[in-house]
Amino acid sequence: MLIRKATEKDFESIWAIFHAVVAKGDTYVFSPQATRDDAHDYWFGPGVRAYVADADGAILGMYKLIPNQRDLGAHVANASFMVSPAAHGRGIGEALGRHCIDEARKAGFDAMQFNFVVSTNTGAVALWKKLGFKIVGTLPKVFRHQTLGLVDAYVMHRFLNDSCGC
Amino acid sequence: MLIRKATEKDFESIWAIFHAVVAKGDTYVFSPQATRDDAHDYWFGPGVRAYVADADGAILGMYKLIPNQRDLGAHVANASFMVSPAAHGRGIGEALGRHCIDEARKAGFDAMQFNFVVSTNTGAVALWKKLGFKIVGTLPKVFRHQTLGLVDAYVMHRFLNDSCGC
Repeated sequence: MLIRKATEKDFESIWAIFHAVVAKGDTYVFSPQATRDDAHDYWFGPGVRAYVADADGAILGMYKLIPNQRDLGAHVANASFMVSPAAHGRGIGEALGRHCIDEARKAGFDAMQFNFVVSTNTGAVALWKKLGFKIVGTLPKVFRHQTLGLVDAYVMHRFLNDSCGC
Repeated sequence: MLIRKATEKDFESIWAIFHAVVAKGDTYVFSPQATRDDAHDYWFGPGVRAYVADADGAILGMYKLIPNQRDLGAHVANASFMVSPAAHGRGIGEALGRHCIDEARKAGFDAMQFNFVVSTNTGAVALWKKLGFKIVGTLPKVFRHQTLGLVDAYVMHRFLNDSCGC
């Protein structure tokens, strides 16, 4: 499996995964009715670096890397990940996560922050902890989970310079 | 002092306050060099509800109210506040804060969250605590303060339905 920069040619695959992920309403704030345009803005909007996991031409997942804030907060990265539901359990999320951390470090970011990890998405929370993230905030009842109702989300953070002593 | 919806006619005053606030580089992520267009996008962009504190025609401060997230997170409000440095110490921030909480409640939001309260902005932190907000997250070294270097920011939150028992 190759992780490489996304191009417009990947958009049909990205849209299919995006739609499958948001349709469940259990991990992302997008409405299950989010449109192709919403997906395109999200993955190919201004300043977005998007990458795909490409297994012999089949796109199995993707991530995007952006600054979490502008200007005086632009030294902290933000990233989002989606894996095709059909490809879960194969380590694709972890491979994307490790690649993203490397890319963010190469791009000069000092840290990475996730602003909205749904607390009931236990697989994601466990993966990010494994990859060095800590929960630095708990946002009460901020996510309207489509089967569980209002649930918490976490803010997760890690520094990228492992020698910084933080 | 009247707190009322902002109109385009207020923009010159809003720009003057915005510029004075961000020029210090101690409370907002905007670069001190942020432009009039940046300010206009911020205060009059799509979906933004902006209000001003109007003292006999003199604009002393303003706030904006938006959903903090789209769709499945849109029940939580976000807001930002700026007060003219020349008008500090007159309770304008507190008056704007109380007005904003009322407006958010009227608009049907369940809660309000601030994503990035600079930890060294002790006046703001104290004001939001006074108005019922709690620190629900501490983001390490996420703000490049123009005199203090990298400092933490807080995520602050309060529910708006005081009878919710939360």
